[in-house]
Amino acid sequence: MNRKMRMGMVGGGIGAFIGAVHRMAAAIDNEIELVCGAFSSDPERSRQSGEMLYLPEERVYPDYRTMILEEKKLPEGQRMDFVAIVTPNHMHFGPAKMALENGFHVVLDKPMTLNTEEAKELKEVIEKSGLLFCLTHNYTGYPMVKEARSIIASGKLGKIRKVVVEYPQGWLNVLVEASGNKQAEWRTDPARSGAAGCIGDIGTHAFNLAEYITGLKVTEICADLTTFVEGRKLEDDANLLLHFENGAKGVLHSSQISVGEENNFNIRIYGEVGGLWWHQMEPNTLEYTQPGKPKQLLRTGVGELSNASKISTRIPAGHPEGYIEAFAILYRNFAKTLRSRLKGETPDPAYLDFPGLEAGLRGMLFIDTVIKSNQSNEKWTKMLE
Amino acid sequence: MNRKMRMGMVGGGIGAFIGAVHRMAAAIDNEIELVCGAFSSDPERSRQSGEMLYLPEERVYPDYRTMILEEKKLPEGQRMDFVAIVTPNHMHFGPAKMALENGFHVVLDKPMTLNTEEAKELKEVIEKSGLLFCLTHNYTGYPMVKEARSIIASGKLGKIRKVVVEYPQGWLNVLVEASGNKQAEWRTDPARSGAAGCIGDIGTHAFNLAEYITGLKVTEICADLTTFVEGRKLEDDANLLLHFENGAKGVLHSSQISVGEENNFNIRIYGEVGGLWWHQMEPNTLEYTQPGKPKQLLRTGVGELSNASKISTRIPAGHPEGYIEAFAILYRNFAKTLRSRLKGETPDPAYLDFPGLEAGLRGMLFIDTVIKSNQSNEKWTKMLE
Amino acid sequence: MNRKMRMGMVGGGIGAFIGAVHRMAAAIDNEIELVCGAFSSDPERSRQSGEMLYLPEERVYPDYRTMILEEKKLPEGQRMDFVAIVTPNHMHFGPAKMALENGFHVVLDKPMTLNTEEAKELKEVIEKSGLLFCLTHNYTGYPMVKEARSIIASGKLGKIRKVVVEYPQGWLNVLVEASGNKQAEWRTDPARSGAAGCIGDIGTHAFNLAEYITGLKVTEICADLTTFVEGRKLEDDANLLLHFENGAKGVLHSSQISVGEENNFNIRIYGEVGGLWWHQMEPNTLEYTQPGKPKQLLRTGVGELSNASKISTRIPAGHPEGYIEAFAILYRNFAKTLRSRLKGETPDPAYLDFPGLEAGLRGMLFIDTVIKSNQSNEKWTKMLE
Amino acid sequence: MNRKMRMGMVGGGIGAFIGAVHRMAAAIDNEIELVCGAFSSDPERSRQSGEMLYLPEERVYPDYRTMILEEKKLPEGQRMDFVAIVTPNHMHFGPAKMALENGFHVVLDKPMTLNTEEAKELKEVIEKSGLLFCLTHNYTGYPMVKEARSIIASGKLGKIRKVVVEYPQGWLNVLVEASGNKQAEWRTDPARSGAAGCIGDIGTHAFNLAEYITGLKVTEICADLTTFVEGRKLEDDANLLLHFENGAKGVLHSSQISVGEENNFNIRIYGEVGGLWWHQMEPNTLEYTQPGKPKQLLRTGVGELSNASKISTRIPAGHPEGYIEAFAILYRNFAKTLRSRLKGETPDPAYLDFPGLEAGLRGMLFIDTVIKSNQSNEKWTKMLE
Repeated sequence: MNRKMRMGMVGGGIGAFIGAVHRMAAAIDNEIELVCGAFSSDPERSRQSGEMLYLPEERVYPDYRTMILEEKKLPEGQRMDFVAIVTPNHMHFGPAKMALENGFHVVLDKPMTLNTEEAKELKEVIEKSGLLFCLTHNYTGYPMVKEARSIIASGKLGKIRKVVVEYPQGWLNVLVEASGNKQAEWRTDPARSGAAGCIGDIGTHAFNLAEYITGLKVTEICADLTTFVEGRKLEDDANLLLHFENGAKGVLHSSQISVGEENNFNIRIYGEVGGLWWHQMEPNTLEYTQPGKPKQLLRTGVGELSNASKISTRIPAGHPEGYIEAFAILYRNFAKTLRSRLKGETPDPAYLDFPGLEAGLRGMLFIDTVIKSNQSNEKWTKMLE
Repeated sequence: MNRKMRMGMVGGGIGAFIGAVHRMAAAIDNEIELVCGAFSSDPERSRQSGEMLYLPEERVYPDYRTMILEEKKLPEGQRMDFVAIVTPNHMHFGPAKMALENGFHVVLDKPMTLNTEEAKELKEVIEKSGLLFCLTHNYTGYPMVKEARSIIASGKLGKIRKVVVEYPQGWLNVLVEASGNKQAEWRTDPARSGAAGCIGDIGTHAFNLAEYITGLKVTEICADLTTFVEGRKLEDDANLLLHFENGAKGVLHSSQISVGEENNFNIRIYGEVGGLWWHQMEPNTLEYTQPGKPKQLLRTGVGELSNASKISTRIPAGHPEGYIEAFAILYRNFAKTLRSRLKGETPDPAYLDFPGLEAGLRGMLFIDTVIKSNQSNEKWTKMLE
Repeated sequence: MNRKMRMGMVGGGIGAFIGAVHRMAAAIDNEIELVCGAFSSDPERSRQSGEMLYLPEERVYPDYRTMILEEKKLPEGQRMDFVAIVTPNHMHFGPAKMALENGFHVVLDKPMTLNTEEAKELKEVIEKSGLLFCLTHNYTGYPMVKEARSIIASGKLGKIRKVVVEYPQGWLNVLVEASGNKQAEWRTDPARSGAAGCIGDIGTHAFNLAEYITGLKVTEICADLTTFVEGRKLEDDANLLLHFENGAKGVLHSSQISVGEENNFNIRIYGEVGGLWWHQMEPNTLEYTQPGKPKQLLRTGVGELSNASKISTRIPAGHPEGYIEAFAILYRNFAKTLRSRLKGETPDPAYLDFPGLEAGLRGMLFIDTVIKSNQSNEKWTKMLE
Repeated sequence: MNRKMRMGMVGGGIGAFIGAVHRMAAAIDNEIELVCGAFSSDPERSRQSGEMLYLPEERVYPDYRTMILEEKKLPEGQRMDFVAIVTPNHMHFGPAKMALENGFHVVLDKPMTLNTEEAKELKEVIEKSGLLFCLTHNYTGYPMVKEARSIIASGKLGKIRKVVVEYPQGWLNVLVEASGNKQAEWRTDPARSGAAGCIGDIGTHAFNLAEYITGLKVTEICADLTTFVEGRKLEDDANLLLHFENGAKGVLHSSQISVGEENNFNIRIYGEVGGLWWHQMEPNTLEYTQPGKPKQLLRTGVGELSNASKISTRIPAGHPEGYIEAFAILYRNFAKTLRSRLKGETPDPAYLDFPGLEAGLRGMLFIDTVIKSNQSNEKWTKMLE
């Protein structure tokens, strides 16, 4: 087992955005090797993508079905160990199900599926398979996000009272999906993206981060969704009030029409005796406040930090790590856990820290709850189950 | 008329916070002279305060009634021109009404009154008196707030789509009102503060700023108020969704339990083709974004700015002006307008820019609407009128 | 003595910059009253300025000589207590000397005089007079500057090793003095400004702040001055290496041609076991570092701070105080000390904290040393005495 | 040639810092494959390192000599294409020379060699070999550094007048080299690091960046070096004044005793009509100023940028790229150029943008000049050649 874990990829061909990110994230820590792929629903595009990636021709497949079946035939010493699925949302369920049913572990881009029905069915498939499943809520890979989670788990903030989480973007302020922007096209198309636009694409990240860091579940939501750009089929702005299980209150807003915002994802959490503030665009800093004391800037690699944070930092303080590195932490943790499994060893709990089935299903239920709340005149809508 | 405008003060004795701010704000631009005061409901405390302020003994009064009546008796060349009322909320209505009815112009701290009933009555008094009335929504005095308003009025952002306005503080995270904090005591006491805590104290500023800068009226509110600190009588946290008259959506949240927040008042406004971001704690910068262009940092005193901004800046760029200077702009504008009036001249429209009756009444209606919404299961509550 | 201290002003007429700042600074804390002035070398301009300031005609003088002589004739209960001199550098010595010799205390804008010869003579006049003398190195008035000084004095940083102090501006990047900019005109004219341009105008502030905060004296300088703008008579850029008495090393650079810089005055100090960073443009924050610990953001009004800092802060944390407020601290301290003196009381040591004779003379010697070093091929030039 | 470029590595075994960075940087863009290595001067440590990296046993060598000779014997389809040398400075020259003389291209960590003599000899070896040589001045790989270079090259700033470049760190504030810190040990040991400590380790980066971005050569230096920590053999602090060939002036300071500084590398450049400011710790932003206009924040991935910047950005704006990504740009450019060469094609000039021989030699001459200047009483020392 002294070898890298072998990854096959579904989707992520030439011109795709997130597929390239997954490949960089998988490569950076030297634990994973891309060995095959079905990079596009267009076989020729898949072939070209494979060539661009220096894969041997015979491991570049015209479609995911062929890939799964052919790889399965390869001897154990050659065939892929897991599949990374990086397609638009409507193409998550099929490949994931088939991969699992054929014995391949799965890394899946978020949100889990096109709709909750699929998600619940996939849940059963995963559980039945007994295989590893990672859903790439990548922002949980940042060291300072893990630090925030550790601080809260340690009780340092006291009881959590308030959460403000934001994910504004501005890139969809006009109807760019009508002028050839591939990224916008599928994200604003219900057939490929699902019932939600902004909320599915980025709101789910905000929701996931809030629950991940606080360790608290959202119980009720009050949602106000808007489609600002004429001709758009899905909402491009979302403002939510939240209730958490412990009585904490929250605000979540995300947007794709907030002109000038890049990916200004950030979260603030206030407890009885402390507060935390983290910004994705300056991810190596975590602001920590205590009543009547100077604000502290916790930094990756500086001073005493949690183990979860320390093992997720590669380079000395002041040399910024970013989005790809955080994404890679999910792959690193997944690969370490997979290796333990393949070796028949108990996985190191430190590396079990990657989002999976539960986070995936919560995300889908969140989307449905938000849509239901938006259509309701009642102030509060209970989280669906 | 070649003299400073003469101010009498009600409230603001030794130990008060906002009274001292009013005095500094009134003094800084050399247009106003403090000539008399009734600084406390305790006559001895009033006397001591007057002494501390180097006022002649005979112009320091034991109560506001005496002050108004005695000043009225003084010859025109001596008596005060206007009264600045800086008492807790329950002591706004009485002095303001009496001052106006006795011919004195009024500057009044916010919110306007203890409740809307008083506010509506005061409205009639003001209108009947024909006198000048300024309500100190002081944040509108910042040059970059005025710049934001000018930019939006000019149409540079296109139609406004979204407003996010926040005013978090952390100083009431425990029951400080039970341990002798005077500022906390009256602010958390319904008899002195009115029906709202956090929303009345700082939420009204947020609401006012949003309407002032955008020029848009809020039409509907969905409110979630919480009293986190046990034993407190008024809410200490507020999360609101807003609808504006033009279809814009908004989020407003303010809090007094957000540990570590000082006065992190800030507003973001996104239009079709531009965005603005202003922070009270770094008030000399206004961030301006346009799609596909670098963010611009507009700064007080740098380059081409609106007249409203330029006449509200006193010193060269890079020498920070702050809270007192912004507060002083209201006094400066009030004094300039008052001088014109006393001279029988038409006031310069540039200086008519101070909040008054309308802003005051809107603020009271906002408080009532928020409380009504909070008690309702309906998602949306229309702004009361 | 229950009255404000009475100030007369020399210079600072209509159109002047620093005179208005002095007046705002003197007014804000209600300890000082402007009672008379000789605001311009042009008597008519002086008269108009006095009118604009609502002074009685008879206390507006055509020149400083007249003012000093006439005020001296007034009864003690009326005449000014001190003179604030806010003229260009070449007009510091004359009024200061005459005021002191006629029994008036003096507040003087920096640098002390046109040249060191004058400064040394003025030193003798001051000492002989026994009167109060304040030189407005205004940046020492910021609460967080005082906090930095207190921290270092307490030994918390250990032995100081390195000081980096910067004062870049960009407003003289072209020959604005040739196109009617009054502020530029005298600052770039050796006859009015003295032997140095940039170094005299702002470099002295940097030097003063370094010595004030660290409590260390500069012993040797290596200077590289440049006049970048063709036609300019004085240097507009200065880069210096410094040696301090305790072995600490330093870098000081200031500039008026650093395009885009407003007043980016800042200082960093590194000791054996701690560091501090302060920026004039965000003056309410002091960054404090310790090895292997999170950086702390000390803030005016938050938590435990030195007495010097606390008594120099007027409003709650998060409400920014700025340049005028810091400047006002010098006037406040001067006025408090003056009042004690007039009352025959021992002044409170807390308020003796304003720059005076020593800082003034050090500043002049600094200018001379820099110019000498710049002309020398030797690396190090000893500080002149 | 449809394959990745094959890299062998010298140094970078278990526990090394920069070797791991090189591997991540080489891996991220999928253009390079690590095929072999001699990771340590200790053969067993080399073997363990190779195992950790999942390399086949037979390609893990006990020393670099063996590696070069054995790899040379392998058929062209297998053997490494180039060697990455990531050893301490005293082990740069030997492996680089031998690799080049045996036909392998070279990527070499900076500074080039232990001393200038070696550097000059290596220069001849490189030129004679005709092979590719990359010296990893990795900070030149940041997109916003390339943007700054492009802006200046375009003339947008006008003639450059002033450069301020800083590289402060704080990690050597005590004698950590005496307590087992491997990174500190060799960096403070003249036998392994060369004649300079701080200046060789990080000062060279600052120097390189200044020349890279401005396109100007430094002509004269005035240096003040200090060893603050008792017992240390090399300087840990450096303050320099610079003269550039076009008359521009500069300040360069770097330090390893600036407590609390992580890797606060930053550069400011002021031209006649514009300024730029870039910070390594927030590398995706480039501040751009023009006289009398708002400061612009240029951001990776936003709006119109130079081609050099655009092809060095992998992910959408607001998703931070960091240190590893910038380092990887050097490897990516090197690999692209190497591929062209191996295919017999003219390399794309866009990818020729990686530091090489000239930058390496300049760096060594810079070190020597600084040391010479530090020992001299003359203010200015001409750059050695």
